[in-house]
Amino acid sequence: MIDKLADRIMELEAPIVVGLDPTLEMIPDRIKKEAVDRCGANLKAAASMLFDFNKEVIDGICEIVPAVKPQIAMYERFGADGVTAYLKTTEYAKSKGLFVIGDVKRGDISSTAEAYAAHIGGVEFEGLRFDPWHEDAVTINPYLGIDGVKPFLKVCEKNDKAIFVLVKTSNPSSAELQDLILESGGAVYEHAADLVSSWGEATVGASGYSKVGAVVGATHPAQGAALRKRMARTFFLVPGYGAQGASGKDLKGFFDADGGGCIVNSSRGIIAAWKSDDRYGENDVAEAAAFAALAMKADLREAFTR
Amino acid sequence: MIDKLADRIMELEAPIVVGLDPTLEMIPDRIKKEAVDRCGANLKAAASMLFDFNKEVIDGICEIVPAVKPQIAMYERFGADGVTAYLKTTEYAKSKGLFVIGDVKRGDISSTAEAYAAHIGGVEFEGLRFDPWHEDAVTINPYLGIDGVKPFLKVCEKNDKAIFVLVKTSNPSSAELQDLILESGGAVYEHAADLVSSWGEATVGASGYSKVGAVVGATHPAQGAALRKRMARTFFLVPGYGAQGASGKDLKGFFDADGGGCIVNSSRGIIAAWKSDDRYGENDVAEAAAFAALAMKADLREAFTR
Repeated sequence: MIDKLADRIMELEAPIVVGLDPTLEMIPDRIKKEAVDRCGANLKAAASMLFDFNKEVIDGICEIVPAVKPQIAMYERFGADGVTAYLKTTEYAKSKGLFVIGDVKRGDISSTAEAYAAHIGGVEFEGLRFDPWHEDAVTINPYLGIDGVKPFLKVCEKNDKAIFVLVKTSNPSSAELQDLILESGGAVYEHAADLVSSWGEATVGASGYSKVGAVVGATHPAQGAALRKRMARTFFLVPGYGAQGASGKDLKGFFDADGGGCIVNSSRGIIAAWKSDDRYGENDVAEAAAFAALAMKADLREAFTR
Repeated sequence: MIDKLADRIMELEAPIVVGLDPTLEMIPDRIKKEAVDRCGANLKAAASMLFDFNKEVIDGICEIVPAVKPQIAMYERFGADGVTAYLKTTEYAKSKGLFVIGDVKRGDISSTAEAYAAHIGGVEFEGLRFDPWHEDAVTINPYLGIDGVKPFLKVCEKNDKAIFVLVKTSNPSSAELQDLILESGGAVYEHAADLVSSWGEATVGASGYSKVGAVVGATHPAQGAALRKRMARTFFLVPGYGAQGASGKDLKGFFDADGGGCIVNSSRGIIAAWKSDDRYGENDVAEAAAFAALAMKADLREAFTR
């Protein structure tokens, strides 16, 4: 998946993943009204409007960017109906040729991680294979160490999938644990980076990158550039662009010398563009998303092109 | 919730939480067959058998122990149908008077954590409140710091709920990040412990414990005892008993001087007891679970009673 993603990024000249993290506030009234009229004032309606909204966004951006990253929390909040909307979203995105990175940040002990690995590996039941999740990759939390990663590694190898492990996150309080300095030198996140590199070592593909990527926040440009040098074979998933504060010029260091090795996430800036850009209205979800994705592509050009 | 849980533990003399982590291998053929006959060979059948099995376990243990802890990975593997089985399980457990600790190990940046907080806070939609998750508490991963915790804290205060933050996990590779020694002294997990204590400080209730608990693995008795002293107002959720290797005598140090402050999880040892204990057969899921829970209560007596 990483090799193919790297190729597709170069083909589109767009190292961009669109974060499908919809809140109800972002959804046009016409979509909301239609869902409530059809389902009633219940969680089925909430889920239905999430999916209908995502569909318009996906239609707008599917030929501009290579990938989407739905944040499962935005769906889980609505219970099983919300999860259904998540699954319909990932399925629809796949049908439009997009790579799907499930932002689930799972991480657990080995027997549990084996169950979570169904996200990218599917599940066997009554001698049949099912793949309810339609994800090409998921994000993983490293706090439990390799036990929580190993079952995913097996699936990555077998089904050509990938994982992105949290190394240095984009949020303000990421420093509380991640930046602690170790007696042996370096910070916790640098040690996590070394673990992530070693976990992926045996899975390096034709692109030169392993199937174990790293999440490195755009809000930390200096650390990002240093990590880029430290983890030469690790693909970066970079959140924190746009609404969280970082812009294209901050991101040069996250890319390799040849402009590869990195995909940058934008959520609100693209999916809610119809609302934040005066030139667009509630019928322009797709077009406003396309415009915002193109604007981001231009903004990243300096960082991306070599 | 922590105050009430502490009371109920003393009332039952059972500092025990039953981990509802079913695998298909644990489920009797009669339950499996009935589900497949009814639903067909699909994920609805898989989900249905998880819930039917849990129901029998819950019936067996609901007057012996105060709480259950379903591990959501075991349900998520089956997609949205699996999540439905999880929600039916939590709802049924609540209806039987059990506290429900959702073992979801979520943790994310603030806007996302706000969405995840619906697990214990419910969600508002069209002016109505919904609580699809039926959880009294959830487990949380601390790698992102307070940003991922704050939205939960608000709900804990408002709705008398709780969270249990991973400090020192029970699995073998927990040492990879958690045991790293800091330049300032102590290990990463000890620093996490101090953060968890401080996050809970303002929420200490009548029981003397805060609404921010800690996950501390039973497989680390020395560290557990040291953490008990370090975090006097933090309630411990202790996995790793039984199948993962720890027994009652290892656990004395996890309890306070008055026998409080701790609840120990057992999953396979209780829910799959019908299979591992020769005296029971496939019609004895509830009774075997009850027997195993009582055996665990006796095994913990020495650690628990003061």
